[in-house]
Amino acid sequence: MKADNNPARGMRDLLPADVATRDHVLHAITTTYRTFGYQRIETPALEDIYRLQGGQGGENEKLIYQVLRRGLPETTETSEPIRDLVDLGLRFDLTVPLTRFYGNNHATLPTPFRSLQVGPVWRAERPQKGRYRQFYQCDIDMIGEPTVLAEAELIEATTAALAAVGLHTVTVRLSDRRFLSALATDAGLPADSWDRFFITLDKLDKIGWDGVRTELTDTGLPSEAITTALDKISSLREVPAEKLIDTLTSTVPSLPDTVIEDLAATSASLDRLAEQRPLQWEFDPTLVRGMGYYTGQIFEITHPEMSSSVAGGGRYDELIGRTLGKDVPACGFSIGFERIVGLLTDNIARNATAILVESDVAVADPLAIARNNRNEDRIVEVVRRSGKLGAQLKRLHAAGFTTFIPVSVEDGTVVVGDERTI
Amino acid sequence: MKADNNPARGMRDLLPADVATRDHVLHAITTTYRTFGYQRIETPALEDIYRLQGGQGGENEKLIYQVLRRGLPETTETSEPIRDLVDLGLRFDLTVPLTRFYGNNHATLPTPFRSLQVGPVWRAERPQKGRYRQFYQCDIDMIGEPTVLAEAELIEATTAALAAVGLHTVTVRLSDRRFLSALATDAGLPADSWDRFFITLDKLDKIGWDGVRTELTDTGLPSEAITTALDKISSLREVPAEKLIDTLTSTVPSLPDTVIEDLAATSASLDRLAEQRPLQWEFDPTLVRGMGYYTGQIFEITHPEMSSSVAGGGRYDELIGRTLGKDVPACGFSIGFERIVGLLTDNIARNATAILVESDVAVADPLAIARNNRNEDRIVEVVRRSGKLGAQLKRLHAAGFTTFIPVSVEDGTVVVGDERTI
Repeated sequence: MKADNNPARGMRDLLPADVATRDHVLHAITTTYRTFGYQRIETPALEDIYRLQGGQGGENEKLIYQVLRRGLPETTETSEPIRDLVDLGLRFDLTVPLTRFYGNNHATLPTPFRSLQVGPVWRAERPQKGRYRQFYQCDIDMIGEPTVLAEAELIEATTAALAAVGLHTVTVRLSDRRFLSALATDAGLPADSWDRFFITLDKLDKIGWDGVRTELTDTGLPSEAITTALDKISSLREVPAEKLIDTLTSTVPSLPDTVIEDLAATSASLDRLAEQRPLQWEFDPTLVRGMGYYTGQIFEITHPEMSSSVAGGGRYDELIGRTLGKDVPACGFSIGFERIVGLLTDNIARNATAILVESDVAVADPLAIARNNRNEDRIVEVVRRSGKLGAQLKRLHAAGFTTFIPVSVEDGTVVVGDERTI
Repeated sequence: MKADNNPARGMRDLLPADVATRDHVLHAITTTYRTFGYQRIETPALEDIYRLQGGQGGENEKLIYQVLRRGLPETTETSEPIRDLVDLGLRFDLTVPLTRFYGNNHATLPTPFRSLQVGPVWRAERPQKGRYRQFYQCDIDMIGEPTVLAEAELIEATTAALAAVGLHTVTVRLSDRRFLSALATDAGLPADSWDRFFITLDKLDKIGWDGVRTELTDTGLPSEAITTALDKISSLREVPAEKLIDTLTSTVPSLPDTVIEDLAATSASLDRLAEQRPLQWEFDPTLVRGMGYYTGQIFEITHPEMSSSVAGGGRYDELIGRTLGKDVPACGFSIGFERIVGLLTDNIARNATAILVESDVAVADPLAIARNNRNEDRIVEVVRRSGKLGAQLKRLHAAGFTTFIPVSVEDGTVVVGDERTI
């Protein structure tokens, strides 16, 4: 048996200061979302393995922590398939559990249902600096709302939540999967190549325009169609907001009216919001978002201090209804919780008071003194005197104490000193 | 593939009202503990399997959800031992992770360290009504404090936390493992039978005095020693507090002075506390507490509305130091979080306001109206009008809305009505 005390590989312990920062962020975010009507739900960490491997998780399905069936014999049967030994897995995101949750509980939930989920997910990724195999996700979803009321509100609520943790100056990037499909159609890309086209376009940040063009050419797509598609995308970048709808209509003639109306409605909402908040927004024709299940508008939020996005989401109208036998419109937005926590390096001040007790004082006395000094906003901790006073006060200061009250016994009487600053 | 949407066997979904109740309880408890100086830490849900199977978990080690190693081939080798396929497990309590955490991080933690842990644990128990395979534990521990300052404060802090969730009238039951050992010595029970003796005595609530006597006799213990031990225990029940120390000394002559001094100190603290709070306390010589690792005072808190205890704990001085190569005194108290939540059946009121929007109003308008009515204490939710107004208001009322503001368009102008009670 090893004698080390490390957490399991790729996992980490959270110290009091870490938890305090995380609680601060969580509280700010959830309090904000709550005022918009989002209600927190919780699903179990373990789900049936067949559900986690149902295909909607993409590459994440390869990273599932798989749980052994209970009551197995001590050895396997001869060369038994590993999958026969497994019946459960740890969730790798909060979306698969949400679709199951809604299917299981929709009869008792309002329409639309504003869901808020915060909690750990697990992925057996290759360990690397700053990334852990257990991490928190923070998702809001509006289920049952077919109009862009959902999109516009999710974006507003998320910018408000980010502002509550101090991220005021953000940029909202907006696009639409239906726009990308129409653009591919108008460029002459065959429908069965769109997925490849989107996946490659999604790498633009990393491999640049030339890289995208090369990768698309390598997959055998007609070079004329590639050029047309990339030119259209390029011409739609940084179009002024007031010219967006006209430019879209002329560049992508097959774009359906409903898509244009939806984009106009979300744009108008963002314009109104930007009058009250220091946020910017832009239509970004290169925005793809990785997951295959998006069906309408997609969006991300970026912040000048972060290279990748702070939050991302979109509409996914076909996912939740699958097990219910009917379409259920849905739209979601996920905040990069761990990334935001990583931005906040300042420790939350504790401001505790120490009741500093000499060792000959009976236990009941300092507890009573602490009790009488404590209230719901004041941390009062009983600490026994040890070693040199100066050194102990230094340690207390480092542990977040700002004042102390000395307690001793003189001639059999308890003496309580004045409160002093550390 | 099954098409149901149930959670995995023995697991459950938590609906918004469930989470609201749990959050309320958690907030009350953690806020109270924080004012005593307890600081929340978090450890990963997964631990190395050898650590979980190290022996300190007793029967719970049989209930571990075991996680398959990653990167296994598709089939097992011929008749491979199942344990060779496993490297991780889900924690079954918060004490095993705490001992590892302290070993890993003690250099950066203050002495004593007041730890607060709240989080899920997993046990593959036989599913039964009201018991789930994932449930929350809520533990405080004081690590590094050798005196009964720890015991007295843990008890006070926990009664304060319980009072914060409305459980004011509680009874503290106190005993000491060293008292039980001294009593067994004085009764003439051989030292190697004490564990059996404690385990049987622990069943007194369920099997009664006769059951205890029969079970002890069946294990082959001398009947005279059994009678002496049970008579001593019986005679120490319901001793008035002011006579406790004298009665203990005369009934159990081998009781060490330090044990008596410790009990006197904790008693004095409880007496002082009872002057300010509606709590009662008693020395309970039949109290054992299941876990084998306790080394000193042990305690439970009971409440008239609950048949089993609300909280329990004790001193365990030998557990944490094992991997550090030195003794580290420690004392802990665990609140039965799920039991307390089960007691609170009243829903937390939401008091939300609906911005009730006719379908021809542009999305940007109701969002702006909601924004201007919302503040950090006020839930304002945008809801689209649908069906008959009376029926919709009824649904809104059931969903926690207490007022609504109607929004419509007349002659191209947005009309905002007065706020009305639902």
